[in-house]
Amino acid sequence: MTPADKLLLLMGEGVCERRSVIEEALTTSYRIVEWRPADGEAAGIAMMADAAAMVTGGDALMKGPVFKSLPLAKNLKFWQIPFTGYEWLDFAFVPAGCVVANAYGHEIAMAEFVLGAMLQWEKDFTTLDATLRTGSWQHRGVAVNDFLQGELYGKTLGIVGYGAIARETAARAAAFGMNVAAVSRTPRNAPAPLSWYGTMDQLPVLLAKSDFVLLTCELNDETRGLIAAPELSALDPDGVLINVARAGVVNEDDLFAALRDKSIGGAILDVWYQYPDANQLNPAAGGPMPSRHDFASLQNVIMTPHCAANTLGSDIRRYKNIARNLDLVASGKRPATYIGEGPAPR
Amino acid sequence: MTPADKLLLLMGEGVCERRSVIEEALTTSYRIVEWRPADGEAAGIAMMADAAAMVTGGDALMKGPVFKSLPLAKNLKFWQIPFTGYEWLDFAFVPAGCVVANAYGHEIAMAEFVLGAMLQWEKDFTTLDATLRTGSWQHRGVAVNDFLQGELYGKTLGIVGYGAIARETAARAAAFGMNVAAVSRTPRNAPAPLSWYGTMDQLPVLLAKSDFVLLTCELNDETRGLIAAPELSALDPDGVLINVARAGVVNEDDLFAALRDKSIGGAILDVWYQYPDANQLNPAAGGPMPSRHDFASLQNVIMTPHCAANTLGSDIRRYKNIARNLDLVASGKRPATYIGEGPAPR
Repeated sequence: MTPADKLLLLMGEGVCERRSVIEEALTTSYRIVEWRPADGEAAGIAMMADAAAMVTGGDALMKGPVFKSLPLAKNLKFWQIPFTGYEWLDFAFVPAGCVVANAYGHEIAMAEFVLGAMLQWEKDFTTLDATLRTGSWQHRGVAVNDFLQGELYGKTLGIVGYGAIARETAARAAAFGMNVAAVSRTPRNAPAPLSWYGTMDQLPVLLAKSDFVLLTCELNDETRGLIAAPELSALDPDGVLINVARAGVVNEDDLFAALRDKSIGGAILDVWYQYPDANQLNPAAGGPMPSRHDFASLQNVIMTPHCAANTLGSDIRRYKNIARNLDLVASGKRPATYIGEGPAPR
Repeated sequence: MTPADKLLLLMGEGVCERRSVIEEALTTSYRIVEWRPADGEAAGIAMMADAAAMVTGGDALMKGPVFKSLPLAKNLKFWQIPFTGYEWLDFAFVPAGCVVANAYGHEIAMAEFVLGAMLQWEKDFTTLDATLRTGSWQHRGVAVNDFLQGELYGKTLGIVGYGAIARETAARAAAFGMNVAAVSRTPRNAPAPLSWYGTMDQLPVLLAKSDFVLLTCELNDETRGLIAAPELSALDPDGVLINVARAGVVNEDDLFAALRDKSIGGAILDVWYQYPDANQLNPAAGGPMPSRHDFASLQNVIMTPHCAANTLGSDIRRYKNIARNLDLVASGKRPATYIGEGPAPR
C-alpha cells in the first residue's frame, strides 16, 4: 500500500465506537473515515469505492445494499471483519486481491463464560439465592447441610476443536484440577495441559471419557450435525454438553430429545437455532424463541443468548488486534488472522 | 495409646455415615463403635466414658447432655471435630490431656464456590437464562450484543487471611489472569501466586486496591467486626465483598447500609447473622431470615445458605484427613490439625 492508498473506512456503529482504540494502537498513519447507517447507503457505497482498507461485518451488512456493492470497491486491499465467525461470508463477493481477516480477542471472555457456566451447573447459585431469599435454608427441597453441590475437581472436560478459546479454557480448567482432553483436525502430541489429545475420528473416545463436552469448533461441512443421537448416547448419563460454537454443530431434534428424555445430564447452550433479526436486538424489541423445540420447558439446560464473548474487554482486545493487522497490511504483510481473499473480478 | 485404649467412638448421623471412608484410610486397628441420636443420651454418655478417641462436633452437640458429659470422659485422649470452625468450643469443657483437632478437606469446594460466585457476579447466568426463556434476547433491558458482561481477567482479588481456602482460591484466580493480594497475621514475603502480601494492619491498602475482597479469616476477638463502615468505604464503589468466613467478621448494620446505599458494588454472602436451629435444617422445616436486615430486598447481593463447603468431595477428603489424624494419635504423635487440649480436671 502506498501512502495515498491509506484510506481506512470504519463502517457501522460498533466499529466507529472503537475508533480511538484503533488509533491509539496503530503505528501506521491511516486516514480514517467513518460511516454509520444514519449517513445513508449512497454515502456508504461512495466511501467503499475509495477505501483501501475497511473494518466492518455482520450479516445485517451481508443482506444490505452496501455489502452488495463490495465488488465495486475497486481500491479495497483489505477487509477486516471485527469478530471471528465468517460462515456467512461468500468469498465470491470479495474483490480480487482483497485480503480478508477475522478478529480474535474474545477467547478470555469465552473461557471465563465456560468455567462460570460449569460452576453454575455444579453449584446452582440461582436456586440457592432464590430459596434463601424466602427464608428457607434448603436447596431444591434438601437440607443445605447435605452434600448436594458438585465439584469440577477431578472431572474430565473434553473439548472439540483446539483453537484459542479451547486453549484459554483448558488452562483455567486445569487450575481447577480437571482432566482436560481434546480432539481436533490436526494430529499432534497432547499439548500441555491436556492429558489426552486425538483427531476428530476419535470423537467417540472423547465423549465416553468426558463429564463435560465443550464444542469450540467452527461450523463447516465437516462439523454440521457432528453431534447427533449416536454421539449424545455415547455421553455419560450425567454428561453435560456445552455449545459456545455454532448451534448447527449439534442436531437440534436429537439434542432436545436427549435433554427431554434425560439421556444426558444437561446442556449449557449459548448458541441457537433461531435468532432475532438485527433490529430485534435492541432493548425495546422482542425476538423469536431460540429453537423450534421448547428448550425453555427444560430444567436441565442453562440457556444464554449468544453472549459469551460480549465483554468490553473482548472488544478492546479485538480492536487492538485489528490495529495490528492494519499495520501488517500497510507494510505489505499478510494480516495475522488471514482467512482468505477475493476471486471476484472488478 | 495402648491397644486396649483403641476404642473409637463415632457420634452422629453424618459421622457414622463416613465410617467406611475412615476404615479404608486407617492404618491403625481401632475398635469402632457408633452412636446415633436414636440410640438415646444414656447410651451416648456411657460410650463417651469408655472411648479413647471420638469423632463428633456441632453446636447441637454443644447444647446437648451428651456434650455436657464430656468432662466425665475419663479415657478420652483425642477428640476430632469433623469440620473446621470451632469458635463455639469452650476448651474448659475438654478433659485434661485430651487433644482436640479440627478437619480440613473442604478448601477445594470453597475455592470453586468463590470463583463460581465471582463469575456469576460478572456473567449473571441467572438473569440471562430467565430472560431468554421468555423469548427476549436482552439482559436487564439492554441488547445482548452490547458489552454488558464483566471479566475477572485483570481484576484484583484481595484476600483477608491466608490459610488453605485462600491458597486454593488464589491458585485458581491467578489462572484467570487476576492479580491476587492478601493480608494475614504472619509477616512474610509474598508467596506465589500473590502479587502483594501484607500484615493485618495493612488491610486498608488491600481494600483500596481490590475489585473483590474475600474474607477467609477465622472469627476471633481480633477479627470480630473487622469490616465495618470505614473499611467498606475504603472499598471501590464497584467493589464486591465476599464472605465465606463467619458473618461476625463484618458489621451487620454497616454492611446492610453500604449495600442498600450502593456505596459498594455488592456482596457475595455465604455466612449469616441468624441461622436455623439444627432441626430446621431438614427439608420439611423452614428457618429464620439470615439477618435482622432485609438483605432479600437487595439486588446487589448473591445470597447462599452457608453451603460453600458442602460437596461430597469435601466430606470424603475430610474423613480421609481424620483417619490420618487418628493414625498419628495412635502412634503417640500430635494430630496434623491440632487446635488445643483440655484443662478440665477429671
